[in-house]
Amino acid sequence: MSPEVAVSAEKASAAGPLLVVSAHAGDFVWRAAGAIALAASRGDRAKVVCLSYGERGESARAWREGKGLDEIKALRRAEAEAAAAELGADIDFLDAGDYPLPESPELVDRLVRVYRDFEPAVVLTHPPADPYNGDHPAAARMALQARVLAQAIGYDAPGEPLGAPPVFFFEPHQPEQCDFKPDVLLDITPVFDRKRKAMECLPAQRHMWDYYTDLARRRGVQLKRNAGPNLGLAHDTMAEAYVRLYPQTTDVLA
Amino acid sequence: MSPEVAVSAEKASAAGPLLVVSAHAGDFVWRAAGAIALAASRGDRAKVVCLSYGERGESARAWREGKGLDEIKALRRAEAEAAAAELGADIDFLDAGDYPLPESPELVDRLVRVYRDFEPAVVLTHPPADPYNGDHPAAARMALQARVLAQAIGYDAPGEPLGAPPVFFFEPHQPEQCDFKPDVLLDITPVFDRKRKAMECLPAQRHMWDYYTDLARRRGVQLKRNAGPNLGLAHDTMAEAYVRLYPQTTDVLA
Amino acid sequence: MSPEVAVSAEKASAAGPLLVVSAHAGDFVWRAAGAIALAASRGDRAKVVCLSYGERGESARAWREGKGLDEIKALRRAEAEAAAAELGADIDFLDAGDYPLPESPELVDRLVRVYRDFEPAVVLTHPPADPYNGDHPAAARMALQARVLAQAIGYDAPGEPLGAPPVFFFEPHQPEQCDFKPDVLLDITPVFDRKRKAMECLPAQRHMWDYYTDLARRRGVQLKRNAGPNLGLAHDTMAEAYVRLYPQTTDVLA
Amino acid sequence: MSPEVAVSAEKASAAGPLLVVSAHAGDFVWRAAGAIALAASRGDRAKVVCLSYGERGESARAWREGKGLDEIKALRRAEAEAAAAELGADIDFLDAGDYPLPESPELVDRLVRVYRDFEPAVVLTHPPADPYNGDHPAAARMALQARVLAQAIGYDAPGEPLGAPPVFFFEPHQPEQCDFKPDVLLDITPVFDRKRKAMECLPAQRHMWDYYTDLARRRGVQLKRNAGPNLGLAHDTMAEAYVRLYPQTTDVLA
Amino acid sequence: MSPEVAVSAEKASAAGPLLVVSAHAGDFVWRAAGAIALAASRGDRAKVVCLSYGERGESARAWREGKGLDEIKALRRAEAEAAAAELGADIDFLDAGDYPLPESPELVDRLVRVYRDFEPAVVLTHPPADPYNGDHPAAARMALQARVLAQAIGYDAPGEPLGAPPVFFFEPHQPEQCDFKPDVLLDITPVFDRKRKAMECLPAQRHMWDYYTDLARRRGVQLKRNAGPNLGLAHDTMAEAYVRLYPQTTDVLA
Amino acid sequence: MSPEVAVSAEKASAAGPLLVVSAHAGDFVWRAAGAIALAASRGDRAKVVCLSYGERGESARAWREGKGLDEIKALRRAEAEAAAAELGADIDFLDAGDYPLPESPELVDRLVRVYRDFEPAVVLTHPPADPYNGDHPAAARMALQARVLAQAIGYDAPGEPLGAPPVFFFEPHQPEQCDFKPDVLLDITPVFDRKRKAMECLPAQRHMWDYYTDLARRRGVQLKRNAGPNLGLAHDTMAEAYVRLYPQTTDVLA
Repeated sequence: MSPEVAVSAEKASAAGPLLVVSAHAGDFVWRAAGAIALAASRGDRAKVVCLSYGERGESARAWREGKGLDEIKALRRAEAEAAAAELGADIDFLDAGDYPLPESPELVDRLVRVYRDFEPAVVLTHPPADPYNGDHPAAARMALQARVLAQAIGYDAPGEPLGAPPVFFFEPHQPEQCDFKPDVLLDITPVFDRKRKAMECLPAQRHMWDYYTDLARRRGVQLKRNAGPNLGLAHDTMAEAYVRLYPQTTDVLA
Repeated sequence: MSPEVAVSAEKASAAGPLLVVSAHAGDFVWRAAGAIALAASRGDRAKVVCLSYGERGESARAWREGKGLDEIKALRRAEAEAAAAELGADIDFLDAGDYPLPESPELVDRLVRVYRDFEPAVVLTHPPADPYNGDHPAAARMALQARVLAQAIGYDAPGEPLGAPPVFFFEPHQPEQCDFKPDVLLDITPVFDRKRKAMECLPAQRHMWDYYTDLARRRGVQLKRNAGPNLGLAHDTMAEAYVRLYPQTTDVLA
Repeated sequence: MSPEVAVSAEKASAAGPLLVVSAHAGDFVWRAAGAIALAASRGDRAKVVCLSYGERGESARAWREGKGLDEIKALRRAEAEAAAAELGADIDFLDAGDYPLPESPELVDRLVRVYRDFEPAVVLTHPPADPYNGDHPAAARMALQARVLAQAIGYDAPGEPLGAPPVFFFEPHQPEQCDFKPDVLLDITPVFDRKRKAMECLPAQRHMWDYYTDLARRRGVQLKRNAGPNLGLAHDTMAEAYVRLYPQTTDVLA
Repeated sequence: MSPEVAVSAEKASAAGPLLVVSAHAGDFVWRAAGAIALAASRGDRAKVVCLSYGERGESARAWREGKGLDEIKALRRAEAEAAAAELGADIDFLDAGDYPLPESPELVDRLVRVYRDFEPAVVLTHPPADPYNGDHPAAARMALQARVLAQAIGYDAPGEPLGAPPVFFFEPHQPEQCDFKPDVLLDITPVFDRKRKAMECLPAQRHMWDYYTDLARRRGVQLKRNAGPNLGLAHDTMAEAYVRLYPQTTDVLA
Repeated sequence: MSPEVAVSAEKASAAGPLLVVSAHAGDFVWRAAGAIALAASRGDRAKVVCLSYGERGESARAWREGKGLDEIKALRRAEAEAAAAELGADIDFLDAGDYPLPESPELVDRLVRVYRDFEPAVVLTHPPADPYNGDHPAAARMALQARVLAQAIGYDAPGEPLGAPPVFFFEPHQPEQCDFKPDVLLDITPVFDRKRKAMECLPAQRHMWDYYTDLARRRGVQLKRNAGPNLGLAHDTMAEAYVRLYPQTTDVLA
Repeated sequence: MSPEVAVSAEKASAAGPLLVVSAHAGDFVWRAAGAIALAASRGDRAKVVCLSYGERGESARAWREGKGLDEIKALRRAEAEAAAAELGADIDFLDAGDYPLPESPELVDRLVRVYRDFEPAVVLTHPPADPYNGDHPAAARMALQARVLAQAIGYDAPGEPLGAPPVFFFEPHQPEQCDFKPDVLLDITPVFDRKRKAMECLPAQRHMWDYYTDLARRRGVQLKRNAGPNLGLAHDTMAEAYVRLYPQTTDVLA
């Protein structure tokens, strides 16, 4: 192999910054906290961008308790900040509103600027179909459009044109109904404790703690099944599932 | 991460033996020579199993020249042996006949024994659909069935139960018509010369040399497009395309 | 079974109000009149919401006769009202325009208010793909988005948060081209006469009367084929075909 | 509606015998025990047909303990009989062998005779795709072929031609990888205790008890999400997921 | 364009012999009679190969009347011969048995010989999926396999290697359930009378006459819808629907 | 056949004007130049509508050279005009902007007027999915919506209602990733020289000349494979691949 490819495509992109684009303030915790904590534990920068706080659609308990809109936003923000801190990630809030999350050129442009500024090597977002929640696909469409625009030298925003960071969709609440067929199972065993603590930063959704702990165990069983019995995997392997948007580029089949 | 998973699932499986199950004597050359040469160049063992010589269905020129069946088989065998040697792989011929390649429990059992004996860490074979050639899906079905049988401790064959080696489908001649949507692009630039030489071991199919050289260049352009512009990839990146059957298991998203 | 589930999920939801969201004034007649008449005959409330009159795209004869836009709208409205009355349903017209039916947050909000007010137990609308008519998918997208928004306690509209009424897509004009694979065949034999009379309320589309009568007979033959020969079904079973968006919830497999 | 259809198609077929065709002795327990126990609790007959004991492919622990083939078969048989008894079902063993389960006209013919004799109103079997286990799709193919053959008056077997009982595929171990998208969620809350006891009849697979208990809870959460909040469902709803092969026939949309 | 391609690919292949491979004696009548009659009316040779008589699975009335197996076969044969004669086609019967139609290398070999002898320019057969009738996909698999084998010079059968005749799947009884999405609508208006007469050669299936007449009218309406209003098509256009297996080759987009 | 259908549907539509709707100034050259040149060489009118110049997203070299926006637009316009002239087509530029190409009712209305004025018999545009470039699907959505609107007599624009011209999607840069499965292979051998010359009118994208020449050769090999060996096709057949949106209407299967 000539010197210029001595660093493989895979390793180079593995070592870089991780960007997570999330429709609501809590989504990144249930679905991608393991990947975020792994990146941080490797020393990679990680950033979460929440397009909204999930103030209308994901805060039922607060509404039932009679809280007001601004109060709810502040509450969700504080929870998400605590969870991000637990995982070792920065977090930004674009406060674009939810239910519905409005798609607009302006919001896409804000995301382009995030890409140009943060220069992610890996991008995580929602999968493009979710018949239970229109905000999730809306966030995905904007995250994907902004990524392509940020690649164009002619797009008028500060910074250098973006490379082609791979995109992974994280797992929706009802995967089969969202046509989510995992093609990556990520071993999050060493950081699962941090994922659990991040989940516990969201006390209003306590019923989700166990649901997503069970899911991590279930995906862990599947990881072991797909990895084979001989790899020295921990008994209680915990995992997250992802779907790639683009083909993997690599110099080794494994 | 606890010590027992210090060696990641991905790296461990990347370092092991590569098994290629091919319907006819030439298939592995056009479609997987790069992956084979890469494995050999890393020091991994590589083995090709040809279920038939392709004597009836892939030897039109020899038939037109009036050669007999045994002569054609010998010819195809010699060519395939030369190509495998060029790539650094062992090669076995099961001589099960082609056009049609008959599916049978006995042939599957022979493959189980290959798996148990060779203990592959990675398996390559044909994709499961090909409306132009029924032998290719037949080979794939047997390769996949044998892999599952070899995993069962209760299956009566020598050796230890197989792990769960990942399976990659290599590219068919008309990919879209075979519903082949690449999800791995493998950089074969450093070994492309060997692939070309292996192809040239098959003189009766000279028109394929350029067809598959062009294809490697085309897949290389796509690899660069998907890997981003900043990775120091060679100008003339050459690639092979693959489809995974099972989800990737890994401890890093990249 | 504990008392609180003594009434099965299926029966409870079967007994409630039926909402039909239709892009144009005539759509509900050809495609869902049987379901509407069945609901009314059971004593359930039924309501049709027409997003437009179909004044531009579905009124070719009136345009050829030289009628004006307002005249055509009034005509279509009168026809649809007559058809709804025949079926025993209420009907509302949102007069949002057609060809194209414009998608807007305001129109979605009007639908949210319909959901909150009517509290449907079952929702019918167009399937999400139709390469022959963009208004149909637009209507479906808005009907589905509004249903999700109406479920959120934080959405600012009068009334209680909506439950999760099942959604059924009714049959488009060219089902295969719209990827419409029926998964429910509804026996409308006892109310087919009313469907026919409702169709006859639309004299400008007389050629459709027989087309949709033939279709009902065809779907009826299929219903009998799928139900088995021993169920005492009428010789001339008439049926409508539907596709579910969400999984059926039930306490009996049948 | 004429008197002969006063009893709806749905209710009539709901009230009849349930047949489960299972590749190995344990499959019906993990995947369909709830449906079986519900049928028995309604007073419907239920029968399980195990094509093999799963002696080679699903009995790893027994092999590791050094047991012999006949001993393992007897063990699996006893366990499955105990589980079926717990659920209130009859059970037959065709002992056709596993890993691989051989497909043959003779085995299909035996299944035809089961259909003609038992006259099921509902059929459960494996889904048609499973890249982890070839016996499951083989069992499904034979179960489906036999069902069609049993419908033909000209097929030479005792009994009357079969009607058209609906077919439901039960959930495989890794649903997404088997393209299993649930379209029925069955509430098994009132019989879950029996399912748990039936699972506990299989002590060699103790790790599955919790895996399938977690799965039932997970499917229960989804059932509640799809059924809406207002149905008086138990807090700890437990469910099983199914996929229909044929369209549902009904006289009410719900 | 050089002289040798002065006759376009499309016209050349349109002018050649038509081969229809049918599982049972009646299939070609309901589903492909229009295409056959069109070919004959153009002066092209047309041949139907019936793999079985449909004696067990498609002769319910004869069995109920107490007829014997040989009698039923003779009856079906006579009917099919009459229908083929009406359409202007030759017909062969391979009498391989039905319900199930057994797949075997010998039967495939007989089909290879038909291909080599008849040298079809166009092939029609069943689509590859039909959950209601396993014989149809079995016939399709053998027809397709034989076509590929007949192309190989090394296949041991008389005659020259076959070209690459396009394959069209004709319409199954329940198209959506067979994933049949028409991509060709064939105008059979000028020969519909002959199709009707051919159908009337099958008196035991009288209920099918109107079903398939209605279908032809329905497909005719769709043909007009897809062809546009300006083509001078007859008011009562009748059509058959087909699906291509391979891409169309042409020198004009239309 | 009655006189009014003596001219077949296929031939009639083949003989008419060709409209190409392209997102950026260069797209029509790489992907559809062969079809355009064939139409012109038959004497049919051909028109290209470029929705934008591709000034931001497809002009990287010009931006790197420091050119300004207006300069780049002028450059792209001149290149595209030269290429269109080479092919014998008219070309219009709607200058709607790119990266992103904004979707709007106004832009759709402009396209409706093009359809009404030009009265195309065949329409070419981008396929509806492209994860690498959002402008391509946006262009396709508008081209398709405008085509349907132009068919409605009630749509307020000059001219007669449009017929139903068939739509063909041309090949995207990475076909498999765009779910592009060719169903038409168009022989462009006699006009390939003109396509090459048209490509050479775009000097900034010199690396594409060979990429698309290789692709034409590759599609040509596939055309020969699908057309069969006996058709007298030129040795170096060159082809373009297309996907139909609507079913083909014809009076001959070929």
